[in-house]
Amino acid sequence: MKSLKDMGKDELTQLKAELEKSFEDAKGKGLKLDMSRGKPSVSQLDMVMDIMDTLNSSSKLLTEGGVDCRNYGVLDGIPEAKKLMADIMEVSPDQVIVNGNASLNIMYDTVARSMTHGVLGSTPWAKLDKVKFLCPVPGYDRHFAITELFGIEMINVPMTVNGPDMDMVEELVTKDESIKGIWCVPKYSNPQGITYSDETVKRFARLKPAAKDFRIFWDNAYAIHHLYDNDQATLLDIIGECEKAGNPDMVYEFASTSKVSFAGSGISAVAASKANLDYIRKFMTIQTIGHDKINQLRHVRYFKDINGVMAHMKRHADIMRPKFEAVIKVLENELGGLEIGSWLAPKGGYFISFEAMNGCAKDIIAKCKEAGIVMTNAGATYPYGKDPFDSNIRIAPSFPTPDEMQQAAVLFTLCVKLVSVNKLLKS
Amino acid sequence: MKSLKDMGKDELTQLKAELEKSFEDAKGKGLKLDMSRGKPSVSQLDMVMDIMDTLNSSSKLLTEGGVDCRNYGVLDGIPEAKKLMADIMEVSPDQVIVNGNASLNIMYDTVARSMTHGVLGSTPWAKLDKVKFLCPVPGYDRHFAITELFGIEMINVPMTVNGPDMDMVEELVTKDESIKGIWCVPKYSNPQGITYSDETVKRFARLKPAAKDFRIFWDNAYAIHHLYDNDQATLLDIIGECEKAGNPDMVYEFASTSKVSFAGSGISAVAASKANLDYIRKFMTIQTIGHDKINQLRHVRYFKDINGVMAHMKRHADIMRPKFEAVIKVLENELGGLEIGSWLAPKGGYFISFEAMNGCAKDIIAKCKEAGIVMTNAGATYPYGKDPFDSNIRIAPSFPTPDEMQQAAVLFTLCVKLVSVNKLLKS
Repeated sequence: MKSLKDMGKDELTQLKAELEKSFEDAKGKGLKLDMSRGKPSVSQLDMVMDIMDTLNSSSKLLTEGGVDCRNYGVLDGIPEAKKLMADIMEVSPDQVIVNGNASLNIMYDTVARSMTHGVLGSTPWAKLDKVKFLCPVPGYDRHFAITELFGIEMINVPMTVNGPDMDMVEELVTKDESIKGIWCVPKYSNPQGITYSDETVKRFARLKPAAKDFRIFWDNAYAIHHLYDNDQATLLDIIGECEKAGNPDMVYEFASTSKVSFAGSGISAVAASKANLDYIRKFMTIQTIGHDKINQLRHVRYFKDINGVMAHMKRHADIMRPKFEAVIKVLENELGGLEIGSWLAPKGGYFISFEAMNGCAKDIIAKCKEAGIVMTNAGATYPYGKDPFDSNIRIAPSFPTPDEMQQAAVLFTLCVKLVSVNKLLKS
Repeated sequence: MKSLKDMGKDELTQLKAELEKSFEDAKGKGLKLDMSRGKPSVSQLDMVMDIMDTLNSSSKLLTEGGVDCRNYGVLDGIPEAKKLMADIMEVSPDQVIVNGNASLNIMYDTVARSMTHGVLGSTPWAKLDKVKFLCPVPGYDRHFAITELFGIEMINVPMTVNGPDMDMVEELVTKDESIKGIWCVPKYSNPQGITYSDETVKRFARLKPAAKDFRIFWDNAYAIHHLYDNDQATLLDIIGECEKAGNPDMVYEFASTSKVSFAGSGISAVAASKANLDYIRKFMTIQTIGHDKINQLRHVRYFKDINGVMAHMKRHADIMRPKFEAVIKVLENELGGLEIGSWLAPKGGYFISFEAMNGCAKDIIAKCKEAGIVMTNAGATYPYGKDPFDSNIRIAPSFPTPDEMQQAAVLFTLCVKLVSVNKLLKS
């Protein structure tokens, strides 16, 4: 297709009229779709309903070691759940603490604890004049919300197809002691679906931060959320790499089954060095009586082992793949060659990231809303909700059906075209 | 029986020899009992096993309002779980947020949040030179551990049979702005089993604290844990009383089902004014994706309503009562009239508190351990683990069987006698 940038004013004006008519038609259809969050679809949830039969009143609710999961005891997770979560993260069980239903809560607690008590003996961050975090962008709004809540200054670091711009990361953490952390979604990143290259992981592991209490927050949320059986991204084990590089304590890794079993009723985990885990356990002893062991047992008995999880995730992929492909196909068909937007075709994860022309994202999302599609807020993929280019849009294809997704994508591209034409006419 | 205090040296020496012989005999029996924590017994847990059948793969996992409990959404608890927890606490559902499996975690988070962000707009406690909490003693070690962790200075306030010494509480909170809170277990208190009188609750509600961000931490852990059907303690609704007294925001109330369904796999809740709850929700939005709604639904469907819970707790009482009565009977039989210890006979809760002669608690607990009974550490019922009188011992009768409990109580009284005789001989 002809690039809109090569069109003259008249051509654009005519196109605008056509697009406006199409938009009014689309609006008339009364579409109502929420694509704002990475919510599992009903069919994904239905697929795992038999987890509800895993345990019943005849079950022996004992761990393999004989601990009664119905009673108090076991602070950091039952051993078999540690093993399962370790296998998902590709680390070893003794590097794992199993928590409650939300890995977000572990990340929040980790930041909160660092604020009040520091990191392995460092000065509590709340006592420092300035604490900063690096934030690869576009990224995950809920990460940014945590650091914003605690008054931590966030610095944007651009993403590349291999992960964050490591030249920038290295330079910043080496020279600035107030930089205490970085938020990463290293596999099938939110929202771009990028997996950090081996070189990126190794450069992370070899960082020489000015701050001894600098930590990589490695949110491996989509570790096993592949779309293709024969084309899966692999990610180096950051904990192992940090160990090798002489930085064993520099990273916390997080994961959960929120998008494996039931969102909100799964189990979550943090993996880290023994020193980090011991420190976390010290606080957990005071914070909680331990997490829900019966739900941990339910997950282990249902999935049995990592093979069970992987087989299950293949069926997830069968549900997710058509939706992703529908979006990508529509983007290609409707926008290919127009030079008004770009995107990557992810091989896993939960999102597709769309880069509109600068200054267009807010207007596109507003247009979509007008026609009945709720998207993630413009700016959400940036710290403070401020996309400096007003260009990034996160598409979350998981919840709608493939048909709905296809319709929504067509409408989305229509909005993209309409807003872009207006922008070009004004420039 | 003759008071040991009226015995002469010879008489005591002879008694000592007899007691030492009995102790060696008892040791020979190789008893092995852990009475250190308020753990539900296996029969209590067995009794609730059919909760595991409440939900299965055929269940509609929807709230009454139609929300799919399997997916993300609903931050502060499903409405029917709010209702259930509200009825347990005798408050209204809109005063309730339902959380995860541990009310301890809500208390921890409440203190942590106050440290970093203050209370409804007050200065974050971490930025103050000094923060203090009042701690009615003897009290609950896990409460004290939270405030100790955050460097909050703890001030002992003696308990009376009507609750904390309110003259002291009133005087301290009125004159000292650095006092920001008080830990209370107002019903069947841990460890004494005391229920705060109406007058005590009203005096709490009418407090005029110097600190605007002073809060009562009202841990109503044993709200429905009666031992007797026809002799139940009642507790005034502190939230309602605070409202009436013009102090609507001065209290947080906590409760859980840890000792109703399964310890560690229950649901918990906090109740407070709308202003307090809105503030908590603001943080929850960032901290978590919400708590396990399926487990909330499981509890509601199993117990149905407060009547179901109360019927269930009656069966609990039938298990607990004989153990409490066994202990009390042994204490009376073995120690009555000796003037070497005192206790109350609780009508609910999980503990019996024993006051030994000053300076004897540590030695008694050490002796018990020598003979195979693990008790809660001496000092645990006081802030910093320091019982200034070394006299308080917490007995936790819930976990052992009644037979074991009876044996353990006899051995315990033997140790009390032995240590007391030694003490008297040295004085």
